[in-house]
Amino acid sequence: MAFKVIKQNIMSENDSVADEIREKLEDTKTLMINIIASPGAGKTLFLEKAGPVLKKSGIKLTVITGDCYTTKDAQRLDAVGLDVIQINTEGACHINAEIVKKALKKIDLKKQDLIIIENVGNLVCPADFDLGEDEKIAFHSTTEGHDKPIKYPMLAKTSRLAIINKIDLMDVLDFDLTYAEESIYKINPSITLLKVSSKTGEGIDSFVEWIKEKIKIKESKK
Amino acid sequence: MAFKVIKQNIMSENDSVADEIREKLEDTKTLMINIIASPGAGKTLFLEKAGPVLKKSGIKLTVITGDCYTTKDAQRLDAVGLDVIQINTEGACHINAEIVKKALKKIDLKKQDLIIIENVGNLVCPADFDLGEDEKIAFHSTTEGHDKPIKYPMLAKTSRLAIINKIDLMDVLDFDLTYAEESIYKINPSITLLKVSSKTGEGIDSFVEWIKEKIKIKESKK
Repeated sequence: MAFKVIKQNIMSENDSVADEIREKLEDTKTLMINIIASPGAGKTLFLEKAGPVLKKSGIKLTVITGDCYTTKDAQRLDAVGLDVIQINTEGACHINAEIVKKALKKIDLKKQDLIIIENVGNLVCPADFDLGEDEKIAFHSTTEGHDKPIKYPMLAKTSRLAIINKIDLMDVLDFDLTYAEESIYKINPSITLLKVSSKTGEGIDSFVEWIKEKIKIKESKK
Repeated sequence: MAFKVIKQNIMSENDSVADEIREKLEDTKTLMINIIASPGAGKTLFLEKAGPVLKKSGIKLTVITGDCYTTKDAQRLDAVGLDVIQINTEGACHINAEIVKKALKKIDLKKQDLIIIENVGNLVCPADFDLGEDEKIAFHSTTEGHDKPIKYPMLAKTSRLAIINKIDLMDVLDFDLTYAEESIYKINPSITLLKVSSKTGEGIDSFVEWIKEKIKIKESKK
């Protein structure tokens, strides 16, 4: 019980910083998305593929990538020519708004169309923390099994886009795509769902179109 | 900074309950293991396979399975004839000692050789929480990629057994087994490492032998 109360205090502090961030991004009309996935769902490879396509289409973007200790993800994203800021949470299981605020200070937001947050690999805690983002993305993978959306429902509930990655491996796994899709729609009937393979490139273009549409909507509010 | 202080308070409360549990299990000479893995690494299927083998060899065991909301894992383990207690953390990302203490009250420990905790699918937080267990098990999977042990080092560091599951899928994935193994040994040179496939049964017997040895050691302290 004491734990719950303490958690609520952390949350209210976090939420006020998230509101600050939201306001700032509203001023500069910068879209911010927060990708949440299990360890090994393939977020980094997805961004290695989608990032350069977004960049090529004229979108100015920076990736903020969160990891407990290493800088491996940042190195990979830097290698494909993306602007990237590495956050090390030093063991914490999620990125909080305060850390994002610090990271955003290193970016000239007026010149940015898009900030992508690659959260720490974890399906539970990151879904609880508002970072001031426009959109959370529930990023699942065929390798983790079709029951994960329903077992971690907060994620699809708070997201407007769900991605099922590694769709190319579906046939070698006992992955029931219909079950996964129906679970996601049951949790959130209005969610957009994309099937993606970072390896074959399937679905990357649809993601890029989804992002472009969101940027257009945000910029049209100028 | 405030967050860190609060976390330390939670930790010290948790640790004193964990010590209580440890003492109780010492009295009854019951071995308790805590399996920690990413969502979808295959903990439940592994227990569906290993549990009945342990039971058949005369070991009296109960599984305590943790999940945020659902009872799916408990249903699966019950279906293969295992005694199981489901913990729902209601959104919390780990099992704490207080919850384990409550679960253990439902078990006649004097009649139990082994308690297996299947933690919430998460590589970060569960590694931080002492549950009074004898052994933590770092449970990885080929599908999550060979970089996960090094990206979540606390897990191998605090475990005496590491398992790499879904070894049967290694060939269809870009999984570098040598890299994964070397990372694990680098983090914890004295760790035991087993390669397992819950699907083909590879490695299950080695796990059962490891458990039997641990039970023998614990009981010999009588």
